[in-house]
Parts: sequence; C-alpha cells; structure tokens
Amino acid sequence: MIAEKMKNMVANSSAIRAMFEEGNRLAGIYGAENVYDFSLGNPNVAAPEAVKKAIIELLDEDDPVVLHGYTNSNAGYADVRETVAESLNERFGTSFEGKNIVMTVGAAGGLNVILKTLLNPGDEVIAFAPYFGEYRSYTNNYDGVIVEISPNTTDFQPKLDEFEIKITPKTKAVIVNTPNNPTGVVYSEETIKKMAAIMEAKQKEYGTDIYLIADEPYRELVYDGTEVPYLTKYYDNTIVGYSYSKSLSLPGERIGYLVIPDEVEDSETILTSAGVATRILGFVNAPTLQQKVVAKCINEKTDLSYYDRNRETLYNGLKECGFECIKPQGAFYLFVKSPVADEKEFCAAAKKYNILIVPGSSFACPGYVRIAYCVSYGTIVNALPKFKELAKEYF
Amino acid sequence: MIAEKMKNMVANSSAIRAMFEEGNRLAGIYGAENVYDFSLGNPNVAAPEAVKKAIIELLDEDDPVVLHGYTNSNAGYADVRETVAESLNERFGTSFEGKNIVMTVGAAGGLNVILKTLLNPGDEVIAFAPYFGEYRSYTNNYDGVIVEISPNTTDFQPKLDEFEIKITPKTKAVIVNTPNNPTGVVYSEETIKKMAAIMEAKQKEYGTDIYLIADEPYRELVYDGTEVPYLTKYYDNTIVGYSYSKSLSLPGERIGYLVIPDEVEDSETILTSAGVATRILGFVNAPTLQQKVVAKCINEKTDLSYYDRNRETLYNGLKECGFECIKPQGAFYLFVKSPVADEKEFCAAAKKYNILIVPGSSFACPGYVRIAYCVSYGTIVNALPKFKELAKEYF
Repeated sequence: MIAEKMKNMVANSSAIRAMFEEGNRLAGIYGAENVYDFSLGNPNVAAPEAVKKAIIELLDEDDPVVLHGYTNSNAGYADVRETVAESLNERFGTSFEGKNIVMTVGAAGGLNVILKTLLNPGDEVIAFAPYFGEYRSYTNNYDGVIVEISPNTTDFQPKLDEFEIKITPKTKAVIVNTPNNPTGVVYSEETIKKMAAIMEAKQKEYGTDIYLIADEPYRELVYDGTEVPYLTKYYDNTIVGYSYSKSLSLPGERIGYLVIPDEVEDSETILTSAGVATRILGFVNAPTLQQKVVAKCINEKTDLSYYDRNRETLYNGLKECGFECIKPQGAFYLFVKSPVADEKEFCAAAKKYNILIVPGSSFACPGYVRIAYCVSYGTIVNALPKFKELAKEYF
Repeated sequence: MIAEKMKNMVANSSAIRAMFEEGNRLAGIYGAENVYDFSLGNPNVAAPEAVKKAIIELLDEDDPVVLHGYTNSNAGYADVRETVAESLNERFGTSFEGKNIVMTVGAAGGLNVILKTLLNPGDEVIAFAPYFGEYRSYTNNYDGVIVEISPNTTDFQPKLDEFEIKITPKTKAVIVNTPNNPTGVVYSEETIKKMAAIMEAKQKEYGTDIYLIADEPYRELVYDGTEVPYLTKYYDNTIVGYSYSKSLSLPGERIGYLVIPDEVEDSETILTSAGVATRILGFVNAPTLQQKVVAKCINEKTDLSYYDRNRETLYNGLKECGFECIKPQGAFYLFVKSPVADEKEFCAAAKKYNILIVPGSSFACPGYVRIAYCVSYGTIVNALPKFKELAKEYF
C-alpha cells in the first residue's frame, strides 16, 4: 500500500501530464499531424547547435573521470558556478560569486532543495494565482502550506492588497514566477517594488524572515523588448531558481541553478544546507556533463523569433475566433478565457477536435485554459481552423 | 533560518563528503600525487569508450527536441525502459516489461522515489549495519524511522536472528545492499533465502506488506566469479534500485532505475505513484541523453580487472602491515578494523600521512574504517609505505 500522502497526489495527478500522455495516445490513432497538442511546456525549438558542439568538445577534451564523476561539492563544479555568477553579474549588475550558486536538477530540483532547506511543518508559502500547480506539491513535500492569492483577471499582475493581508508570522516564503506560467505576464518593476516594500514591512512587524523565491525558467523568453526586473536587486531576502529547460531547450536534461546571495539572511547556513539538501534528496549533484555544457553555452540564446511568430499567429487567430485573452509578454503560453464557466467542459469540447489544452483549475484559476504555444508553427496553422469550428459552438 | 530538520542534517553532514572536500584542500597544499584520498566511491576508471560513441551517435542521429526533451512519461523513455527490462530478463531469467522499470536520477534518486511512495510517518525501515549512512537521511526525508540491525563483524553477513526480532507491524521496508558498501561482502543465496522466509512469515503474522528494497549500484562489481542472487526471484515484494554510477563510471550523470515487478503487492499503484513521486520531488525525469546512452551501452562493462588489481594489492599490503580486514568479494571498498577502539582517532592519525579514510560510525559500525579503492593504482602503491608508517604507531 502506498503512503497516505501519495494517495492524494496520485488521485490529483497532474492534469498537464495526463493531457500530454493523452496526446501521445491520440497521435497513435489519428497520426501526430492531426493532433494539436498544446498541453506541455516542452520546447519544440531545438537546442542551439552550440550545445552539440559543446558536448563533443567536452568529450574530446575533458577527462571522462572528471566529466562524468561526482562533483567535489554537491553544489556543482566550482568553475561552472563561477561562470554562472559572472554572467549574472555582467547582465544584471549584481555581485555574486561562485559560492552563491548551487547547480540543480532543473528549476523543479532547485525549488525542492530550497523548500527542503527552509520549511518547517506548517510554514506558509504564498503563491499568486494563477500559478504552476507543482508549487503546491513541492510545498507539501516538506509539510508546508500553500496560501493562495486570488487571481487578478484584469491584467494578471498580483493582487498586492490581498497579499499584504495574507502574510502572517508563519509566512516563510513567497514564490513569484515572472514571466509567468500560465499567463505569460511579466510583473512590472512597479509591482516588484511594492511587493518588496510590503514584505520588508511585514518582516519588521513580525520579526521574521520572509524569503522571496523567484522561479525564473522563462526569464529569457520575452517579446517586444520587455524588461524583466532581477529580483535580488529589489529585496534582500531573494533566492532565484533558474532552469535551462526553456532558454537552451534542455528540459529533459534537468539542469538549472539556485542563486543564494550574501544579502539573504543566514546566507551561509542556507548555502551549506542547500548543498546537504541536494545530497539527501537524492539529486547528489546536477548532471555533470550538462553543468559543463551550460557553462560553455552561457551566452547562447534560443530562437525567440520562433516563439514570437507562434505567439502572434495564435493570439491573433484566437481573437479572430472570438476568444478572450491578454497578449502575453513572455514565456510560451496563452491563458484564454473559457467561453463556459466550467473550463473543463471546454477542454473536453476541444478534445473532440483533437485539440489538447489544460484547464485553469490546474493553476488555481478556473474559468481559463492554458495553451502552450511552444509547438511547431504547422501545428498552430493547422489547429486554427479547428479552433474556429470549436468557437462556433459558443459564439 | 533553516528548517529544524535540516539543522541536524547540516550538523551531521556527511563525513564522507567532508573527507572528500578535505582531500581537495590537501591536494591544493601538497600536490594531488602526495594525497591518498580513499574517501569517496568516485570511480577512477573512465567510462567505457562506448559511452562517448553512444553520445556522439545520439547527437548525430536523434532529433534534439526529443533527445533533450521531457519524456512522455515521468518514468522515462518507453524504449529505454523496454531495453532495460529485456536485458534483466536475459541475464536473470526474470519476466519484466518496460512498464516495470522507472528510470531514476541515480540510485539515490530511486531510493527517494520509492521511500516517498511507500512511507507514512513513523513507518520503520530496517537496515543492516554497516550500511550506507544516506539510508537514514532518505528515510528521514519521509518521516520514516531507521531500525538498525547490529553488525556481524565475523563475516558481515546480516544477523538474521536480530532481524526477525526487530520486524514489527510498523516495518514497511527492509533495505539490503549487496555487494555491500562499506564491506564489499556479497550476501549469500542461503542468507537471502532465510531472509525471505522470515519476511514472508512476518507478513503473514502481521497481515502487512514488507517491501524488500535491493540497492544494487555494485551488482556488476564482483570478483573471483562470485554470484550475486537477483532478489526478486526469492521474495515477491522486492523492489530493485540500480545505478550506472559504478558499472559505467557515470556517477555525476545521475542515471539509474527502479524495478517494480508485477509480483509486488499493489504493483500498479506503486508504479503510478513512483512516476508521480519522480515528478513532485523535482526529478521530473531521469536525464534524457543519459537514458539513451545507458540503453545503447546496456551490454558494456567497466574494467573490473582494474579494481581487482587494486583490491589485491591494497588488501595484501594492509594485511602485511598488520591490519585486520575481510577480503571483499564485490564493490570497491575495504572495511578495515581500526587498531584503536575509537576509529575517528585512527582516521585522524591517517590524515597526518595525507591518507583520507572514512570512519565506520558513518556506516553505523564504529571501530572500523572504510577505504575506497576506486583510485588509481599509483595511489595505492604510493600509499602503502605510508600505511606501513601508520601501522608502526600501533603494532
């Protein structure tokens, strides 16, 4: 018999994943070209050619005993950590050192490491709806409690009034994800400043530390020249989680990092503890070859124009069909208003046209659906007539 | 402030890791060639040339979007899982299918996945001393309790009388590790049969399921033609955890698997739950390139003769110095009796000669030390005169 805690988890197992697996089933029946799978954030842009080149160079030049061996520190190769720190400093004017970086098994691994490090049972973690549903699972892993801030469906910037009210002496962390999954919204500098001021005041009021966890797998995916504020510059107790899953199209390789700046309260202990958490959670170290790859590819970029064309085409196409949606500034998702109150009904209707999309309830925001446009352009072009037929059922 | 649970973990942070980091520090001072670092199970044998070949082939032939993408199932690529199942069936006469295999982030990742899947708070997990200290951390991650069976220092086979007594209605799992870290001992077929009979009887007596978890990273590392029984054949409720860290010298790449056979009680639920645990613990999936690599290298072997020469040379050399030790049949460790009761004192004395070894207390077996001989032959040859000097302090 499995653990009680897992029973709920299995029962409420990821709707996103279920959709993705359903897509593969449908592809088997109808042919992949006749299934429009917008369910998962699995980039359809290939990793930059430099990734392949880096791997081959590493295989040719590096000692395999070191290249594939345990890293000296659970936090990763010292040179890789330094490269990451220097790159951040160049780009954002920060002053991190290698020691502030912990290489992780993707952002998901990093979030688990930092939540394991910080949370006592009953500690509260605030998330702004709509938010990536896994935050709830990660928090639950360490017996923390997710506290939701309800969605602001006007522009999907966080509701700061509600935020201020919901911070309690038990608030240990606040997770923000900008550019946002599922809305594509980038939190403005004004928002960030206000949020920081609220948290500073609450830390003083309660005499506690409230850690801001910036989950940033989409940092590099922004359009129209949008700027994404680097959060450590606005609030001292900020910890950044990053992933190369989207920026280098390496989601399966599980490579990312945490930044734990010196300005963070108890920084040194948290850094040590994050190394220990990396070890005891069974990650041991981020995959070594990929650590070296991302260091070699530190200035590489994914093909943003690919996503941007998808964004424009799908956004305009859906608007023409009559669907309501804000235009995303980042990431690769559209968060579309369901034409019926129960968006699961809408998702089921879409499936009749072999269109796979994810209900907003998975992001604590029912009444909406998420459409991941990290697919081939052909999928979008071919799906639009189907969306048109679907729209006719409602408008 | 870090979590209460982590405070203990950080305080008792791995002595093995500490030694390893100390080794690097000493190497910086005295030169790597003058430091004899026997602290970590980090293979000094390079990965087989076939690994490099496999990676290059995959980069040349596979679609990078798939090769580096999320796998359809959190349990891994379907074809890789089938390859692993078929290979096991060929070698051990089992009848696994791909669905019985969950690809994991090394054995450490696999153990966390299965313990997360099985353990309710307070559940007991039995381990036979000496055992890999991380079992305690992994169990603690899910609020389980490690129950230790004291070491049998005669031949380091498990003490089955004590085992039988210590199984309770709260016993959820029993971890065995054969070939064993730190002793190198392989549990005999006779031992396994007796152990299985005890567990069968206790399951009936208590009406519970007691899962046998076989942690097998050293399965392929055996000498003198020793056979390692495949445990699923002796006890139905057996789950196997495997890693390619040692067999293909890929410890940093974090690649392994779990086998959850159909014969296991609630097999289907456990398989589903292990997939969910893989996701929510932040592993998401085992690193994808390495999944494909191990499938391509399924019949590759590490250079056993390298380890065997080390084993013979170090074992004979230490015996000549007067140290007491049983001759290991597998893995790449010698578990040597400390010439003084407090083996930490002995480790400290060894450090004066730049010899780094790990106290047995880290394996719940004080009075002994672990010497990892997965080092270069030169390290062993050069260390032996130092061991001789060290021995003179005692004999």
